[in-house]
Amino acid sequence: MMRPSKRAQDELRAVTIERNVSKHAEGSCLIKFGDTHVLCTASLEERVPPWLRGQQRGWVTAEYGMLPRATGDRMRREASAGKQSGRTQEIQRLIGRSLRAVVDLQALGEVQITVDCDVIQADGGTRTAGITGAWVALFDCIEWMKARDMVKDGVLKDHIAAISCGIYEGTPVLDLDYAEDSTAETDANFVMTGSGGIVEIQGTAEGVPFSEAEFGQLTGLAKKGITRLVDLQKMAIL
Amino acid sequence: MMRPSKRAQDELRAVTIERNVSKHAEGSCLIKFGDTHVLCTASLEERVPPWLRGQQRGWVTAEYGMLPRATGDRMRREASAGKQSGRTQEIQRLIGRSLRAVVDLQALGEVQITVDCDVIQADGGTRTAGITGAWVALFDCIEWMKARDMVKDGVLKDHIAAISCGIYEGTPVLDLDYAEDSTAETDANFVMTGSGGIVEIQGTAEGVPFSEAEFGQLTGLAKKGITRLVDLQKMAIL
Amino acid sequence: MMRPSKRAQDELRAVTIERNVSKHAEGSCLIKFGDTHVLCTASLEERVPPWLRGQQRGWVTAEYGMLPRATGDRMRREASAGKQSGRTQEIQRLIGRSLRAVVDLQALGEVQITVDCDVIQADGGTRTAGITGAWVALFDCIEWMKARDMVKDGVLKDHIAAISCGIYEGTPVLDLDYAEDSTAETDANFVMTGSGGIVEIQGTAEGVPFSEAEFGQLTGLAKKGITRLVDLQKMAIL
Amino acid sequence: MMRPSKRAQDELRAVTIERNVSKHAEGSCLIKFGDTHVLCTASLEERVPPWLRGQQRGWVTAEYGMLPRATGDRMRREASAGKQSGRTQEIQRLIGRSLRAVVDLQALGEVQITVDCDVIQADGGTRTAGITGAWVALFDCIEWMKARDMVKDGVLKDHIAAISCGIYEGTPVLDLDYAEDSTAETDANFVMTGSGGIVEIQGTAEGVPFSEAEFGQLTGLAKKGITRLVDLQKMAIL
Amino acid sequence: MMRPSKRAQDELRAVTIERNVSKHAEGSCLIKFGDTHVLCTASLEERVPPWLRGQQRGWVTAEYGMLPRATGDRMRREASAGKQSGRTQEIQRLIGRSLRAVVDLQALGEVQITVDCDVIQADGGTRTAGITGAWVALFDCIEWMKARDMVKDGVLKDHIAAISCGIYEGTPVLDLDYAEDSTAETDANFVMTGSGGIVEIQGTAEGVPFSEAEFGQLTGLAKKGITRLVDLQKMAIL
Amino acid sequence: MMRPSKRAQDELRAVTIERNVSKHAEGSCLIKFGDTHVLCTASLEERVPPWLRGQQRGWVTAEYGMLPRATGDRMRREASAGKQSGRTQEIQRLIGRSLRAVVDLQALGEVQITVDCDVIQADGGTRTAGITGAWVALFDCIEWMKARDMVKDGVLKDHIAAISCGIYEGTPVLDLDYAEDSTAETDANFVMTGSGGIVEIQGTAEGVPFSEAEFGQLTGLAKKGITRLVDLQKMAIL
Repeated sequence: MMRPSKRAQDELRAVTIERNVSKHAEGSCLIKFGDTHVLCTASLEERVPPWLRGQQRGWVTAEYGMLPRATGDRMRREASAGKQSGRTQEIQRLIGRSLRAVVDLQALGEVQITVDCDVIQADGGTRTAGITGAWVALFDCIEWMKARDMVKDGVLKDHIAAISCGIYEGTPVLDLDYAEDSTAETDANFVMTGSGGIVEIQGTAEGVPFSEAEFGQLTGLAKKGITRLVDLQKMAIL
Repeated sequence: MMRPSKRAQDELRAVTIERNVSKHAEGSCLIKFGDTHVLCTASLEERVPPWLRGQQRGWVTAEYGMLPRATGDRMRREASAGKQSGRTQEIQRLIGRSLRAVVDLQALGEVQITVDCDVIQADGGTRTAGITGAWVALFDCIEWMKARDMVKDGVLKDHIAAISCGIYEGTPVLDLDYAEDSTAETDANFVMTGSGGIVEIQGTAEGVPFSEAEFGQLTGLAKKGITRLVDLQKMAIL
Repeated sequence: MMRPSKRAQDELRAVTIERNVSKHAEGSCLIKFGDTHVLCTASLEERVPPWLRGQQRGWVTAEYGMLPRATGDRMRREASAGKQSGRTQEIQRLIGRSLRAVVDLQALGEVQITVDCDVIQADGGTRTAGITGAWVALFDCIEWMKARDMVKDGVLKDHIAAISCGIYEGTPVLDLDYAEDSTAETDANFVMTGSGGIVEIQGTAEGVPFSEAEFGQLTGLAKKGITRLVDLQKMAIL
Repeated sequence: MMRPSKRAQDELRAVTIERNVSKHAEGSCLIKFGDTHVLCTASLEERVPPWLRGQQRGWVTAEYGMLPRATGDRMRREASAGKQSGRTQEIQRLIGRSLRAVVDLQALGEVQITVDCDVIQADGGTRTAGITGAWVALFDCIEWMKARDMVKDGVLKDHIAAISCGIYEGTPVLDLDYAEDSTAETDANFVMTGSGGIVEIQGTAEGVPFSEAEFGQLTGLAKKGITRLVDLQKMAIL
Repeated sequence: MMRPSKRAQDELRAVTIERNVSKHAEGSCLIKFGDTHVLCTASLEERVPPWLRGQQRGWVTAEYGMLPRATGDRMRREASAGKQSGRTQEIQRLIGRSLRAVVDLQALGEVQITVDCDVIQADGGTRTAGITGAWVALFDCIEWMKARDMVKDGVLKDHIAAISCGIYEGTPVLDLDYAEDSTAETDANFVMTGSGGIVEIQGTAEGVPFSEAEFGQLTGLAKKGITRLVDLQKMAIL
Repeated sequence: MMRPSKRAQDELRAVTIERNVSKHAEGSCLIKFGDTHVLCTASLEERVPPWLRGQQRGWVTAEYGMLPRATGDRMRREASAGKQSGRTQEIQRLIGRSLRAVVDLQALGEVQITVDCDVIQADGGTRTAGITGAWVALFDCIEWMKARDMVKDGVLKDHIAAISCGIYEGTPVLDLDYAEDSTAETDANFVMTGSGGIVEIQGTAEGVPFSEAEFGQLTGLAKKGITRLVDLQKMAIL
């Protein structure tokens, strides 16, 4: 089996992370997983959602969007359609949950950080690139707060990163691009912390159901990929 | 550790499936997982979504809803709010994908079956009860079609059922009810076929991340539970 | 003239009222007028609409919904359509007005009771079954409040019930089912109190206009039917 | 009892009907019931709703709107609120049904006439003025079609007009203005044909329920009022 | 070149302004530019938008609407479409900005005046007729406030009026009607004060671009027309 | 007077145009006017809007969006708000009209080109940068079509570019950035062709009205700026 991109079975696409790409945001980066490019910005607001007011805890949430021509065919702009698709909502809920898993909301204080992940160009894996980049934007936002004595150390408890795996032409592979994703039999997304804990698992059989053993192989690939992504995050924030 | 319901770690709630509860639908059942009650109806329509027209294949889709007072506090009616929540869309997409995994859409012919899962009363696990009941409604709808020579045997390739597992007070348990679900550290939903293949996995750490070993334990519980649910489906359709 | 259901001209369908069908609601019942089945739940909330705040009066309101396959053909889910139809809004306004006609809102105190009427299965007369069942759910909700010393006696001033009548193949008949309703020349709904006062009348000629005399006959039938429904409510709450 | 307007119990407000007030519409009039002013336009379109296509029958429908400052306090514009209120939908459905009761839809041919009733100024009774004026606009639209040989005689089978009655300070009165409407115990709207048949009745007890005898008195007043309105329509179209 | 209306190149249509046309509004007029008829009402509310609260300044805003059959073909009602078109929003923002240019918002005090411009009949130039009439309604509203000692003199700093110009069959003309507007090569709207200052300019080439010299000619025509409109406003408020 | 950016009165910000920034779009560029960055993509679709079908003419349209944190404060995402603001609609209509002014729609054939202008970072002048960049994306899209023999030469008749001018602290200046735009007394946008014709003019007095002479000065600046922008477009497409 040869992957369309000629990558090895356990090989990530070229990943780059460029920080401070936004003049306005408290934290930002442009992350690329090959041809998938996601702009992540973290915005600090000094108010929390209504249901959290007065509890001396903060909140971290995320929103996700895709430019209309990020994809091969132009998609209708969600603002013009008048609503966000189920897919968009699913992804932004996932990003928010993932980030909150590594933030001490008590220590954050009564503020909200919104991380926007906007897909400038899509080639598969936008949600995993989004989570991985969102962590960097969040890191910089919290550094920004530290520099202003708004928070102490310890707000950000760990790294968080995400990767997809799948069974493509019968073989488990890491980091699906669009050519693989659109034909893979099984597709799974993993979100893990820097210390190796699992935060989210989502696996879907597109055609033939998969076995527990196969899922174990995918988990193994994911651990390897996420270890690498966390290293890249560490290098990016040096 | 004692579960609030005093069930054993690997014990399902009392599950009942009552077929033919709707005068109008081609297939229907009322499924109960303890105090969680979901009405499932399968509706046959002789037209497919626009993007599928003329391809001589059918479609199976699902919609999910909850009566406003299915829950402890009354929730706002989605029809009055003017849109379906992200959670609702996520669940109905999951149910649809799960059902399609066991249907031969080519053999179904150019028709659409919509399975509605409406939660009459909620006590945790509405999506897993929904999927398990939806299969029964779908089975009856296809039998209805067979009786009218609209399809041959083999349209429905296997059973499909779903169950939740979680880590509750440090212990892996099967089939979370609301009391457990609202405090569990980890919460996972499994969708599997009658022959044991995995179709969907969704696992979320609510607090502390979980390990691969813990996830393996949850998968083991889920396989046991789903084997039992498929047996109950078989008894229901005798 | 023979009615499709073979009922006498002034004969109701079989009516049953099952109380306490919801684990969560303060009051609830499942009411059946033949094949028309409506689930009614009363929900108590300790806040009133904005325009009523601080006036030491309560409010009773109603919402109405229909499961997508309650009817012969599947209808589009209103939550997915993004709005409630004119028909839905008309009916829920009618139910709310009818209930408020027999409640002492001053004596209720600054709380709101929302009665949800959800049609599980439809065969004509859903609004009249809804009003008749809503009264029972409301009764139980107020009993619930009495048991907690939240209100005194006298909040609920009378019974309220509703029935349809129509001119079917030239003959005035009581309690139209769907087969009659869809072809009746004239269709009228009556809402009356236990002491015989009229609270709402809605009469529509579908084809030929009707005369004052004919409307008098329909009113006579309705009085008879509602007397019987109030008796059934009394038996249900014994 | 003295009515706020000093009118006799069975006295209409001053009613005027001015035809041909629109440069563009096929039929139009400005109808005034005292300070209630409604602009009615009838628009002919050579296509029918999708569900009626190919059946060689036409359709008559109505829409209702109110300018934001037609009322004592400015109301939010429905176009800006993003939806029509339940009240608006209820009224426009009533106007449409009333008009269709006197039109031979077969004879109309496969076209649609939409009558818009826009309230320029409101002082109670906007729906009854709307129906009464809508008939005149519809009449002129059908005359316009006759002049172009699009239809024969007999499309419009009868007059239709509407009036409100109510029990105000214990006394049945005809044609409520806003001062009466806002405090009346009972409020009823009647829609009748020129030959005296009843097409729609809507009666609501705002406080104390009403008796069958009282409703009979209101019906008597309504018949008197509608006879007068039909005379005014006849004079208007001379 | 002969204009379809046979007007001279620099000739306005017949303009009339009728004040006090609304029983309820604090200020109102019906303005006619030929067959374009716009009802303008000014409504005073004792609260300002949230972002202005506590700043001891007032606000003037505008809304714009068109009756469905104001035009040659019936347009869909925006309330039924569920949103205001881009054109409607563009126009109401323009009217609001134009009015605020001549109001001392500090002197107005913490209140809001909403001017509604509703097009009863359209024949080109509805936005310019709207602005010109809106000023008269606003004037009367402020007079109403003065009569109640709510404001002093000087709130309204100047007149404001608007007119369209365009290049029609190669010739610059003043005050386009629909016949001209729909075929003009260039179309421009000017909003100016009574003392001749320019507040808004909007010019669009529909086909061939225009030159600076041509735009100068249009500006000259507009100044002439607005001088005349301001005179008519002065006569109307005598 | 010193401009905040220390630019000369008639000096543009640094303008750069980077072509082919999208893997998927038929034409694309990233245009920067200083800190204002707009991504422009042109998408070719082989179907035209319904009202244009069968007329053998094409269409060019535009959509505009802003990433939530393109601005100093995070703005609510329009897709989440459920509608596009009036400002967004106004801008996208302007971009579309501007582009159509230089396209021979007949020669384009029955296809539609949609140009998306998405603001990645905002610092004033997003609409003028958008139009200037949109032309480049459109140019490349038409070149793409030429290379596939879908169109001949002559579809694109001229360049189109846009710039803002304003009166800032009493002095007319070219190409306002946010610091100037937010306090300028007068703000005007000009859209002109490569041959110097004017296609759109929009001028607004924010405070004191402006004179015809002042507007002439702004027009002069704009011509100078647009000449320079057209030169930059020419260099970009070499």
